[in-house]
Parts: sequence; structure tokens; C-alpha cells
Amino acid sequence: MEVPEKNAGVISSEEENATPTYGLSDDTVQEIQNAVDRNDSDFIHAQLKNLHSADMADLIEQLKPKLRLPFLTIMKGRLDPDVYSDLDENVREHLVDDMEPAEIASFVNELELDDAVDILENFEEDDQQEVLKEIPPDDRAVLEEGLSFGEDSAGRLMQRDLIAVPEYWNIGQTIDYMRDTSDLPQEFYEIFVVDPRHHPIGSVPLNRAMRNKRNVAVRDIMDTEQKLIPVDMDQEDVAYLFQQYRLTSAAVVNEDGALIGVITVDDIVDVINEEAEEDILRLGGVSEDDLFGSAFSTARARFPWLFVNLFTASAASFAISFFDATMQAIIALAILMPIVASMGGNAGTQTLTVAVRAIATKELTAANMLRILVKEIMVALSNGCIFALLVGTIAWLWFSDPLIGIIIAGAMVVNILVAGIAGMLVPVTLDRFNIDPAIASSVFVTMMTDIVGFVGFLGLATVVLL
Amino acid sequence: MEVPEKNAGVISSEEENATPTYGLSDDTVQEIQNAVDRNDSDFIHAQLKNLHSADMADLIEQLKPKLRLPFLTIMKGRLDPDVYSDLDENVREHLVDDMEPAEIASFVNELELDDAVDILENFEEDDQQEVLKEIPPDDRAVLEEGLSFGEDSAGRLMQRDLIAVPEYWNIGQTIDYMRDTSDLPQEFYEIFVVDPRHHPIGSVPLNRAMRNKRNVAVRDIMDTEQKLIPVDMDQEDVAYLFQQYRLTSAAVVNEDGALIGVITVDDIVDVINEEAEEDILRLGGVSEDDLFGSAFSTARARFPWLFVNLFTASAASFAISFFDATMQAIIALAILMPIVASMGGNAGTQTLTVAVRAIATKELTAANMLRILVKEIMVALSNGCIFALLVGTIAWLWFSDPLIGIIIAGAMVVNILVAGIAGMLVPVTLDRFNIDPAIASSVFVTMMTDIVGFVGFLGLATVVLL
Repeated sequence: MEVPEKNAGVISSEEENATPTYGLSDDTVQEIQNAVDRNDSDFIHAQLKNLHSADMADLIEQLKPKLRLPFLTIMKGRLDPDVYSDLDENVREHLVDDMEPAEIASFVNELELDDAVDILENFEEDDQQEVLKEIPPDDRAVLEEGLSFGEDSAGRLMQRDLIAVPEYWNIGQTIDYMRDTSDLPQEFYEIFVVDPRHHPIGSVPLNRAMRNKRNVAVRDIMDTEQKLIPVDMDQEDVAYLFQQYRLTSAAVVNEDGALIGVITVDDIVDVINEEAEEDILRLGGVSEDDLFGSAFSTARARFPWLFVNLFTASAASFAISFFDATMQAIIALAILMPIVASMGGNAGTQTLTVAVRAIATKELTAANMLRILVKEIMVALSNGCIFALLVGTIAWLWFSDPLIGIIIAGAMVVNILVAGIAGMLVPVTLDRFNIDPAIASSVFVTMMTDIVGFVGFLGLATVVLL
Repeated sequence: MEVPEKNAGVISSEEENATPTYGLSDDTVQEIQNAVDRNDSDFIHAQLKNLHSADMADLIEQLKPKLRLPFLTIMKGRLDPDVYSDLDENVREHLVDDMEPAEIASFVNELELDDAVDILENFEEDDQQEVLKEIPPDDRAVLEEGLSFGEDSAGRLMQRDLIAVPEYWNIGQTIDYMRDTSDLPQEFYEIFVVDPRHHPIGSVPLNRAMRNKRNVAVRDIMDTEQKLIPVDMDQEDVAYLFQQYRLTSAAVVNEDGALIGVITVDDIVDVINEEAEEDILRLGGVSEDDLFGSAFSTARARFPWLFVNLFTASAASFAISFFDATMQAIIALAILMPIVASMGGNAGTQTLTVAVRAIATKELTAANMLRILVKEIMVALSNGCIFALLVGTIAWLWFSDPLIGIIIAGAMVVNILVAGIAGMLVPVTLDRFNIDPAIASSVFVTMMTDIVGFVGFLGLATVVLL
């Protein structure tokens, strides 16, 4: 068992009352860059002696790309393997590209299973095999099994190390077992109780185990209401269970119902972040976090979304082209038409954002969908009417023509109403067809509000004015 | 200590191998609605006997609003107080409005401190006092202190109950103390070690305490590297610390450095969700989760964003109006102009989404800002040129005029470049001025891409064609 160095992190009494600061400062990054430039390894070693692996990863990310490899050379043998797992994927891939398989294997093998699998799964099949070959057979088998579970499944998140005891044991036996066994997980929060077939039948939180006398049987104090996680469950559903039931850890079972692993809440924190990030980026038309990606790969990844948008924007222009005579007769229409489309687009984005989020948190269901659609229609009518009044007045005064005011007001109400309905129905429909609503809702809704905005306004004008 | 009912949740052997299902089905919601309609309390009690508080809260949210109060009446005395804390804020406010202060006080007082404070802080000052008056003085003092901490501060998140022992104690003394004291927190993962002034000097994870012999001194196995959290730290920063350093729990200290509470990772899961939700909604122009809000309050909350958009859209129209003669001469320009603006808007949204997210995760800093800006410019130039070529060709073929193709291509490159630069600099600048970049970036960036898109295209056309 690891016993931490005594007093390693005790803060002196002067500092004690100050607000602690965590993480890296921009100055530190600059100082380290300068030191790498002049190859001053003593300075770097002294400065970074007690830096946490997560801060070290941040530091590497902040360094100029060309200084990262020299920095790693200076830090050789001093880097906590966790640094590699904390690194941004783009930066890690770039660094690992230059390493020998044996070198990669040596840090991968020191990581926790889920972190190791996380790194290996991003390798090409061949490179993965090269690295695995360098890992001792026992550990390799565990890693290979980890890799065999589907991407983003519970199997990928779980740890294999756990404490499981038979139900007839008492607390004393359990504690003695824990004291005598050296091969225990580093962190755990509960003791699982299993039947002879190794099926989990309950669990005892550590604090409850400690508070009970040695002669108490585990079966008498165990929680029997368990949330068991099938090994192939999607990580998004696992995260939902942890949040919904405020779990700290949960047993993972195979298809026979036998206990094969445990997932703890700290792994879930990462999943929640990943899933939220995915939704934010997808709503913004970005397929993956590309902050540290190269300009080329970033441009390529962002291209498809812009390409789709080129089609929808062209479709809108095509719709407008039918009204060229109307616009030529009354040029005010060409001047005003972006307002109707823009207001509809924004109202639609508001509704679809709420809907996409509510689908992700399972708050928007078949049971309340109709009710919430009706509400969105009322919201759209109410804001639509107010903005119609405002825009109508502006247009009237601007072009001194009450009819133009009335036309734009009518088009505005229609478009905001369409925006509210589409903003609700598009994500719900995509979700029904198992398409992530975050990825495609925006393009459909904006296309509808653009076309309805332009055609509604120009069409109404053609009917009324010509 | 609570000992759970034996076998309460054991699944029968037939079910055992099936994939467990969690949460509510839409059918259940429908059945319960029908039962409330016919006031069939026996059916409801039988159906919902073992329902988890979080699922119960979901059920109430899914019920038609007018059935919620009758449902509560049927469930009177059977509802876990946690249900109120799990409920959506809008739904809870609506239900609590109809309750007597004593009734509210009775469930608030059974909640954990952070959950209780969370509910009370949303009350009007008067109502809050009414409820507090009904709570026994000791508990009231704790709640009042909780409320005295700033909203969204560490003080609001922390639990006061914790285990703190002097450093000269050994494991045996600590375990005996835990066994003999009944007034312990429900859940905890580590034992804090304090000096005589009650300053935390280390902590022992429960699993380590259990694995050591009774005669081992806590000071010899404690982690001295602690992440101490000042009581007034913002919850977003607290969440950052937990994620960055993979903490399970952390000590909260007052301004004198004394240990006054503990924050655990399950509270952080909620914070991470809240903060991610806030970013998603703000980027979509929605100020708060309004799924369960009334149509009136929803329309009112979404109004300001649309109002701001009305200004920016009108500004774009105003810019267009200077080119009325150009458009009248060549109506193709009016038809094509939305494409340039739309492509710029989308490219800008991509960049600003990545930037807003990277600012939130502290990946985008002063140290790498310039480098990433240069990258964004390269991305913009590369995609800008490709789309200029595409759009230029389309426009040329459509209107059989190569000059129109060249003009729209030029405007496209300029606008996508402006989008990339603004998408980066606007959020960074807002953040520098301590304005949440998620809330305002989009409006600034879209205004710029709209105006540059229209003016660039029409202006270029005026110079070249007229």
C-alpha cells in the first residue's frame, strides 16, 4: 500500500490563511518555455517537482508544439503516467507518434484500466498490437478484454479490481481480509456481497462497515437495493443512472448476471463532461473538440457542416429568386427580408436548444410532448405578435408605407410560429429515429425559418402589393 | 444507523438475467394519471411503493399540471422529502405555493443541508422567514448560516457533518469513535485529521483506514497534500478542482483556515450539469431552463434575446439599404446575398463554440491564445477559399455572369475570415471583462458576419459592376 510522503504538501503558516491558488499561471508556462529553449533542465525539474499530473498535462498543452518533445526529453523518467491520460487527445497522439512501442507500453501498463483502454483505443489496429506485445501477458489479457467491450460502453469505464465477500462473512472477517490482501484496488467506496455464483446480492458502504462491530454479518447491514449495470450499457445511460440515483459506485455484471467490475462516480464526472461537450459542440456545428488539432484537420472536420449549410442557404436563395420581379418593383422588400428570417432563426434556436437539452436529460418524453408543444405555440404567438408590432411599426415609419408594415408583421408572426413548432418537432422526430438531435436539428430548423421567412414575406408582398 | 430492509430489492431468479430497466415508462405515467383522475389511491400506493425519490420527482413533472396537487394529496405522508429536492424548480415552486409554512418546514428540515438551502434560497424573503420560524432553533441556525453564504459558493454546497480526528489518534481509536458516535454523516469517504486549532492537516481515505492495523497512527498514513476549498469559492471553480484533481471529497475552510465542512463529488456532479446546461442554453439564447415554466414566463424570459436580435437584424437591413440602387440594377445580388451572410454566421458559430467551451475548461489561456488565433485564421482561409470557389461557380452558372461569381467568391473569403477572427476574439474579450462569453458572443459575432457579409458583397458589387 502506498503511504504518502509525510508533510509533502503542508503549507507554511504564512500561506495558511491566504486563498489557495491551484493550477498553472500564464507566467509559469512562459518561464518553462524559456527554460526549454535554453535547455535548462535543473530549473524545470525544480519548478515542476510537485506539479500534479493534471496540471502537468495542461502545461504540455500550453507549450508551443515544437517545444513539447524537447520538454518530454527533459522530463524523461520523471513524468507520472497519469499525465498521458490527462492530455488532450490531439496533443497525446502527436507526442505518442514519436515514441517506441516499448516506451508507450511502459506508461500504459501503469495506468488504471479505463485510462489505459482509453489511450489504446485511439491507436491504429497495428500500432495497438505493437504496444500490447510489449506488455506482460497477464496485464495484456486484461487490456485486451477491456478493448473488447464496445466503445462508450460500461465495460470501458469499469475497474476490474474490487472487494467482493460472501454474505455469511462478518465485518471482522472482511476487515482482516482487506488488511491481509495486498492486491486491492487503489480507491473503493463499498464492499460488494456476492452469492456462490458470484452474482451481486448487496453492498455495504465503507463508512457503514467501519461503524459496525466486528461480529456483525455483512448480510445484516448490506443495501440490497442495487443498481446493476450491464457491461454493454451505453456510457450515457450509465451517467444517467449515477445522476438520477446519486450513486457513488455501482456493480457491473456480465450477461449471466455475475459481478465483473465496478464503476465509480469520478469516472462518471468525465462522462458527463464529455456528453455535455458533445452536445455543445454539435449544436454549434462542430463535430469534435479541435482546439489542439492542426489547422488542416480542423478545417477538414468543420467542412461538412458548412457544406450542408451551403445547400440550405442556396435553397433559401433559390426560393427568393422566384420573387425577383417583386423585389425589383419594391426594393424595400430586399432590404427588410433578412429581419424576418433572422428573427425566426433565433426563435427557432431558442426552442430547439431547450428541446435538445430536455431530451438529453429525459425530461421531454412522449407523456408530456404534446403539452409542451402547445406551450411553445403559445410562447411563439405571444412573442411573435409583440415583435410583429415592433417590426411593422419600424418598417412603416422607415419606408412611409403602412402596407409594408402590415406585410412584414404578418410574415413575422407566421415565421416565429413555424420556428416554435419546428424547434420542438424536429429534435423530437430525430430522437425518435435515433439520430442525435444535437447534431442535425439546427440545420433543419434554420432551413425552415429561412425559407418560410423569405417566402412568407416576399409571397405576401407579391399578393398584396402587385 | 439506518439498516435497510432485508431483501427489499432482490430480484427474482427469472428476472436476474434480464437487462435491468430503470426509470419511468410512459405507460406508468399514463396509468398513474388515470388513477389520479378516478382518485384510486390504493392503486397508486401499490404501484409506487418502491419508487426512488428521483423517479417520483420525474413522475410528478410528467403529470398534467392540474393533476399534481391531487396526486400530492393522495401521496400525503408517503413522499420521501428528497422528492422535493429532486423536482424541477418551476414545478416545485408551483406546488409549494399551495403549502402551509409548517408543511414546507417539515420536509425541508429532513433534507441534507445543501438541498434544504437550495430550496429555501428560491423563496421570497418573507416566505423564507415564515418557513424558518417553523424549524427548531438548532436546525434553523444551521440553515440560516447556510443561507448566509453567497449563492453558488462552496459554502452552499458543503455538508457540515464530517469526521475529524486529532493527528495523535490511531486507527483503533478512530474506528471506536465512529462506532460509538451516533451523530455521524450519512455518507463520507475520508477522515479528516486536524490540528488543535481545527485546521485540516491531512486526510485518510476510508479504504486506507480499514486496511491498516488498529495501532497505526493516522498521522502516518494520512495524505498531506490536500486541496482546501475556501468557503467563498465559486462553485464553478470548485467543480474545476474536483475534475482537475479527480477528488472524491475535499475539506472546506473558513477565512481563518479552520475546517468547517466537506464537499463530496456527488454534489459536484450536479454543479457540472448545471454549468454545462447554463452554457448550452445561453449559447442558444435562452436564459434558464424553461421546459416546465408557464407560457407567459417562458415568453417573457426569451423576449430580451429576440429584442437584441431585432436590433442587430435591423442594423444589417440598414446597412443593406445603402445599396438599394445596386440591387435594383442587378436583382441577382438580392437573391444571393443571404448565402454570404449565412455561411459567415455558421463559420463564426463554429469558432465561437470551440472558444467558449475552451474558456470554460481553461484550455484557452493567454499563453496559447495567439497561436490558436493564427490557427483559426488558417482554418478560415482554407475553408473560405474552398467555399468561395464553390459559391462563385454556382453563382456564375446560375446568373451566367462570371463577374457575379468573382464578387460573391471575394465576399465569401472576407466574411469567413472575419467570422474566424471574431469567433475567437469576441469570447476572449468578453471573458477578459468578466462577461460570460456564452451569453453574448453569438449576438456580436452574428452581427459582424451579417453586416460584413451584406456590405462586403453589395459593396464589392457596387464598385465592380456599377
